[in-house]
Amino acid sequence: MFYYLFKYLDSAFNLPGAGVFEYLSFRAALAVITSLIISLFFGRRWISFLNRKQVGETIRDLGLEGQLEKQGTPTMGGLIILTSILVPVILFAKLINIYIILMIFTTVWLGSIGFLDDYIKVFKKNKKGLSGKYKVTGQVILGLIVGLVMYFNSDIIVREKVQPDSQIYTEIEQTGPSSKFAYQQVRSTKTTIPFVKNNEFDYSSLIKWIGDGYESWAFLVFIPIVIFIIVAVSNGANLTDGMDGLATGTSAVIGLTLGLLAWVSGNIIFADYLNIMYLPNAGELTIFISAFVGATVGFLWYNTYPAQVFMGDTGSLSIGGIIAVFAIIIRKELLIPILCGIFLAESLSVIIQVTYFKHTKKKYGEGIRIFKMSPLHHHFQKLGYPEPKIVQRFLIVGIFLAVLTIITLKLR
Amino acid sequence: MFYYLFKYLDSAFNLPGAGVFEYLSFRAALAVITSLIISLFFGRRWISFLNRKQVGETIRDLGLEGQLEKQGTPTMGGLIILTSILVPVILFAKLINIYIILMIFTTVWLGSIGFLDDYIKVFKKNKKGLSGKYKVTGQVILGLIVGLVMYFNSDIIVREKVQPDSQIYTEIEQTGPSSKFAYQQVRSTKTTIPFVKNNEFDYSSLIKWIGDGYESWAFLVFIPIVIFIIVAVSNGANLTDGMDGLATGTSAVIGLTLGLLAWVSGNIIFADYLNIMYLPNAGELTIFISAFVGATVGFLWYNTYPAQVFMGDTGSLSIGGIIAVFAIIIRKELLIPILCGIFLAESLSVIIQVTYFKHTKKKYGEGIRIFKMSPLHHHFQKLGYPEPKIVQRFLIVGIFLAVLTIITLKLR
Repeated sequence: MFYYLFKYLDSAFNLPGAGVFEYLSFRAALAVITSLIISLFFGRRWISFLNRKQVGETIRDLGLEGQLEKQGTPTMGGLIILTSILVPVILFAKLINIYIILMIFTTVWLGSIGFLDDYIKVFKKNKKGLSGKYKVTGQVILGLIVGLVMYFNSDIIVREKVQPDSQIYTEIEQTGPSSKFAYQQVRSTKTTIPFVKNNEFDYSSLIKWIGDGYESWAFLVFIPIVIFIIVAVSNGANLTDGMDGLATGTSAVIGLTLGLLAWVSGNIIFADYLNIMYLPNAGELTIFISAFVGATVGFLWYNTYPAQVFMGDTGSLSIGGIIAVFAIIIRKELLIPILCGIFLAESLSVIIQVTYFKHTKKKYGEGIRIFKMSPLHHHFQKLGYPEPKIVQRFLIVGIFLAVLTIITLKLR
Repeated sequence: MFYYLFKYLDSAFNLPGAGVFEYLSFRAALAVITSLIISLFFGRRWISFLNRKQVGETIRDLGLEGQLEKQGTPTMGGLIILTSILVPVILFAKLINIYIILMIFTTVWLGSIGFLDDYIKVFKKNKKGLSGKYKVTGQVILGLIVGLVMYFNSDIIVREKVQPDSQIYTEIEQTGPSSKFAYQQVRSTKTTIPFVKNNEFDYSSLIKWIGDGYESWAFLVFIPIVIFIIVAVSNGANLTDGMDGLATGTSAVIGLTLGLLAWVSGNIIFADYLNIMYLPNAGELTIFISAFVGATVGFLWYNTYPAQVFMGDTGSLSIGGIIAVFAIIIRKELLIPILCGIFLAESLSVIIQVTYFKHTKKKYGEGIRIFKMSPLHHHFQKLGYPEPKIVQRFLIVGIFLAVLTIITLKLR
């Protein structure tokens, strides 16, 4: 909003200083500051409001130390995060940018599903909340929409470097301003994977076997992959959210990393120097992710051990979805297994635990557990590690994975 | 060491792949990994060794909750940090680089003073340790050495952009390969400050009033400032080290920020684009600071609440000194009040508390305290905040200050 306001002021009245809103870094800084202010100040009021309404989480009794102290801590704090993301984005981002539209839609969509879930849990006193079937359906629909937009929207392009010996290069040479950045704009299903030449991978190459014209069928692989990623990461964040500050801290680290990648991807000089795919207009996403980082860090202020508020599914489902969609948009989604390694490990621990337990029960009549408890963080808790120590160590691993994600892009 | 070994292998036998050691990013990655491995594995053994030897910290009884539980936690963990810094630096850095020599000297010098202090405390059972007089003398000597080297060593230069209309520019134009980066190498007392044009400030301008030839007397202001910064930051880190993971976490964040700044300062393309002072050979410092970050993060693994080991003065005095000297070398020392804002606040809280107490005692016969207790973190503890929450919040503020430090450089 302010972007358009100042742009208007700048052009209509030539207002001094109004032009500063053109600068991405300036608007990103405003977004971080605004989201921090909202989460810190709105957060405090929201927590006391929830406390008055007694919107306490009903804690499953897992026989874990210190667990019953958590009884009565208010949940649905995710609303603090969502507000702190949406307000700065609406204020400072270019709202006609297709990527920004996708991100706002994702936030609102998954936030609503999570809210419904928390609402049923808290007010209907139904511990199970929204049935898992509905949650997954919601995530699948989101995946479908994101996949279709990414595939068919004509604003979504990548710019590819043109080989200096090709025909088109000569044409650009003659028409364009600089030979240093000779690019052509193309629509493509390319994404980024580490360890290979140019770090590029094209989804359409998966269906080369269908023969001529295979490229027009690429959506058949692209869309299911998008859906899978969104469902997986959203639920991964949801499972990780079981200890004070764990999901929040991990997400803040992931957000910061994605922000760095988005900023570099949207800047032609850096993208060229670091050999990262250049995505026109993706720089605008820096505003969104700045708000995201500000929101998670601000929420962490209250959510860190011992937590004064939990994010609930309102928070975790949407945070996971935001991370997934953001990564897909900047074409770094295949780095998620490394970057979101904590979510992955938590999810795998549940899958392995349940599968093996069922398998052994069927085979030997008695189920065997691999972990003392799943998700993974509870395993360490059962081993006697104190909660804040587990969270800190998971965070250290998370930071290490973030650094690794960035390093892998440089190793070829 | 490995740098020279592989360089030799590369030139003598043309060994495939040996040339990869020329890459700063590759060696920096190796440095992080090595320091993490040393701190994590050596750390575990060291802690159990200390436990056997009963090198427990004698805790002052401050009447704080949970405080007596800390009794018996081993100290001198700083040796883990120092080892994890020095080994990777010796293995992977260019050891003839003047900056690397300065950093190694700083680490060993302050590490020895801190060790002596801890040794007296633990084994001589003398709670006061090394007298403050000796500690400050040691820091002042270090400051003097660093100041003299920075001022007089002929390897230490900055490259300044040359104005396109100047005489020298035309000369470089005619001799140099590219007009885009027309620089001249100069020795100077320039440093970086935010909010002004070019972000530059020259210490020698402080003594302009002495008239002609003032520039040759610049060391009269430069060296005292260097000494002051080293003494202040070293003691600031020392004061901050009073809660599990506080000094360690804060230092890791500061280290990461300094690393980013060093990397950018040593890379001509980024330095030019971001308009940051370009420092030839400073890139090599990335190796040192990578080891520093790895060491602090690895140590945090054991030092986080509830801590299994304390760093002691061996750790905190040297960590503070390393940060100060590193900032001075990359000419970002005037950003320290922002970047190391946590250290500053902790120091100020002590100074204010003591000064005001003495002042009021003299004036009214009874001393009045502004904080419930100093350093600052104990003030919040007395207010009833749990220790891990205080540490996390200080860390969040520390991260915010780090981001602010980087942002200030872009605002002009």
